[in-house]
Amino acid sequence: MSYKDNLLKIEAYVAGEQPNKTDFIKLNANENPYPPSPMAIKAINDFDGGTLKKYPSANAVGLVKAIAEYHGLKPENVFAGNGTDDVLSLCFRAFFNSGRPILFPDITYSFNTVWCEILRIPYEQIRVDENFRIDPADYRRENGGVVIANPNAPTSIGEGIEFVREILEDNKDVVVIIDEAYVDFGGTTAIPLLKEYDNLVITRTFSKSRSMAGMRLGYAMGSADAVCALYAAKDSMNSYPVDSVAQAAGIASIGDEKYFRETLKKVMATRERLTEEMRKMGFDIPDSSANFIFAKHKTLSAKDIFEFLKSKDIYVRYFNKPRIDDRLRITIGTDDETDRLLDALREYVNN
Amino acid sequence: MSYKDNLLKIEAYVAGEQPNKTDFIKLNANENPYPPSPMAIKAINDFDGGTLKKYPSANAVGLVKAIAEYHGLKPENVFAGNGTDDVLSLCFRAFFNSGRPILFPDITYSFNTVWCEILRIPYEQIRVDENFRIDPADYRRENGGVVIANPNAPTSIGEGIEFVREILEDNKDVVVIIDEAYVDFGGTTAIPLLKEYDNLVITRTFSKSRSMAGMRLGYAMGSADAVCALYAAKDSMNSYPVDSVAQAAGIASIGDEKYFRETLKKVMATRERLTEEMRKMGFDIPDSSANFIFAKHKTLSAKDIFEFLKSKDIYVRYFNKPRIDDRLRITIGTDDETDRLLDALREYVNN
Repeated sequence: MSYKDNLLKIEAYVAGEQPNKTDFIKLNANENPYPPSPMAIKAINDFDGGTLKKYPSANAVGLVKAIAEYHGLKPENVFAGNGTDDVLSLCFRAFFNSGRPILFPDITYSFNTVWCEILRIPYEQIRVDENFRIDPADYRRENGGVVIANPNAPTSIGEGIEFVREILEDNKDVVVIIDEAYVDFGGTTAIPLLKEYDNLVITRTFSKSRSMAGMRLGYAMGSADAVCALYAAKDSMNSYPVDSVAQAAGIASIGDEKYFRETLKKVMATRERLTEEMRKMGFDIPDSSANFIFAKHKTLSAKDIFEFLKSKDIYVRYFNKPRIDDRLRITIGTDDETDRLLDALREYVNN
Repeated sequence: MSYKDNLLKIEAYVAGEQPNKTDFIKLNANENPYPPSPMAIKAINDFDGGTLKKYPSANAVGLVKAIAEYHGLKPENVFAGNGTDDVLSLCFRAFFNSGRPILFPDITYSFNTVWCEILRIPYEQIRVDENFRIDPADYRRENGGVVIANPNAPTSIGEGIEFVREILEDNKDVVVIIDEAYVDFGGTTAIPLLKEYDNLVITRTFSKSRSMAGMRLGYAMGSADAVCALYAAKDSMNSYPVDSVAQAAGIASIGDEKYFRETLKKVMATRERLTEEMRKMGFDIPDSSANFIFAKHKTLSAKDIFEFLKSKDIYVRYFNKPRIDDRLRITIGTDDETDRLLDALREYVNN
C-alpha cells in the first residue's frame, strides 16, 4: 500500500483559459474590463503595511459594517469571505444539514455539484426549459434547501422579485440561497425580501461589478441566525479568511458609488451594442442581465467559432456539455475589445 | 419545522482576545512584534491596482516559484494558500481518505480535531508525556496519517530531524504532515527529508516569522502527487484563494533574507531574556524553539496571573483545558513590551 492510495481523487473545476501571453483579449472569465475604483486602489497603495504583523479583524468588522450600511442592513446580517466561492462553500456547510436533497437548476454555476459531493449533501438538478428559464413550480417539493443564481450563469437570464418570492413561499422550512454575483448589471435584487423571509440568504461578490476579482472578496446577507451559522463554519476552518488589505480596499470600493455606477453603465451599454450587432449576424442571444452574453449561431458551430476566435487571440468560453455545447459565453469587454471581437465574428460569419 | 433546524451547530475555535481598545500589549496570538519586510510593504504600496480587475494567478505561480527557489525545491513541490489554516484544512481533505484514524498529540494545534469532525476523518489523540514531549514510538500503529507540529504549540518544544525520520520510517504508507509554523525561531526543519520520503508534507506560514498575519499566506511542501491532491481539493472549493496583492507581498518578503534573519534574531534574543528573568521568579518554562513560551509558576495560579496581567492591559493566553490549565502561553513581544510584562509579573509574584 502507498500513501497515494489515500489521496483525494476528484475532478476539479476548470476555469477559463489563461494563455501564457500578454497580447490577447480575455473574455472568458466574466471579469470587468474596467479597473476598480481609484479609491480602492488608493486604499491599497496607502495601506499601513506595518499593521500586517497582526491578524486581520477575524470577522472583517469594518468591511461588514460598510456593506451593511450600503444595503440598509445591520452588521449582524452580513458575512464577508475570501471571494464568493469561499462564502458559498461555507453556506453549503452551514445551511444544508437536513439529509434531504437540495435543489438547483441543471444549468447553473458548476461548483454546486462539487460542494455537494465534498460535503456529502444530496442534491437534485432541476431541468431549466428550452429557453433556459427556471420554473418556480419545479421547486415545490420536499428538499433540504434551494440554490438559484439570479441572474443565472452561464445563461445571463435574470428573473424578477416575484419569482424569488414564489420560491421562498414554497420553501419556508429550508434556506434559499440567491446568488446575485451579476445582479448589478441590470438584474433585480431580492434584498427587499430579507425583511420578510428569515430563510433567504443572498450572496454577492466584488469580483464582477466592482472589478476586484484579483482581491478575493465576497459576502452573504441573511438573518442573524444564518450569519451565525456561517461564522461557526468559518471559525472551524479558517478563522481569518479576509486579509487586512482586502478589507481596506473593499471598504473604499463600497464608498465610491459614483465610479461604480459609471462603470456599470459603460458595461451595460457595450453589452447592448454587442448583442444587437451579433443578432444581425444570425446569433440567438437571450436578453442579458449580466456582464456576459450567451450566444448561439443559427447555423455555425459554437466550437468552431470558439477556435477561430482563439486563433485571433480572442478568448471566449465554450462549454463541452450537453444542452449548452451549441453556445458561447462571452464576457463584455471594453469598447475597443468589442470592436475587435465584432470584426473577427463578421470575418468568420461572412466566409 | 424551521430552516434553523438545518443550520450547522459546532463549537467554534476561540482565538486570542482582541480587546476593543488601542493601548494594550497583545501577547496572545503569537504574532511577530516587528513589521513585515520593508520590501513586502513596498510591494503593496506600489501595487498596480488596475490589475485587480482580473482574477489572480489561480495557483499563485509566481509566489510558488519564489518559495520553491528559496527552499531549493521545484514549483511542483509547493502549494500556496490563504494562511496555514486554509492549507492545513485542504491537507486534511486531500490526504486522509483511508477511513483509518489519523494520529496527532493530545496537546497540539486545536484545529486538528475540528477539521476531522467536519471532514468525518476518524482520529486518535496520542498523549504527550508529563514534560509535553512526543514519543515517536507512540506513532507506530495502524493509522490513516500523522500530524505533528514541530515546534509544537502551545508547548513551544522543538524536536530534531531524527525524531521526524523515526515517525516517517514507521508510517511510509500514509501522509505525515509536519507543521513548521514556528520553525524559523530556532526549530529544526524536516525539509532535507523531503528528498527521501515521498509521503512527507511540511506546512509553513507567513504569519509568524515573516510578520504577515494580516496578509493570510501559508504553504505546503511535498511530493508532486501530494501537491496535485491539494490542487484538486482547492479547485473544488475556492479556485483563487490567494489574492494578487498578497502574492506580490509574499514574493517580496521571500526576497528579503537579511531583514528576515535580523527580525528572527531579535525575537529569539528577547525570548531568552524573558525566559531567564521569569525562571528567576519561579516559573517553570521549557526551552522554546518558537516565538512564545509556555510558563507555569511553581506556586501561583496561571488563571490568576492571566487575570492580573489583563488588569494591567497585558493580554497573554490561558487555556482552560485539562493538563495545561496551570500554564500561560506568552508571545514574545518587543523589548519594551517585555520590560512592561516583566515589571507586572514581578509586582504580582512579589506581593
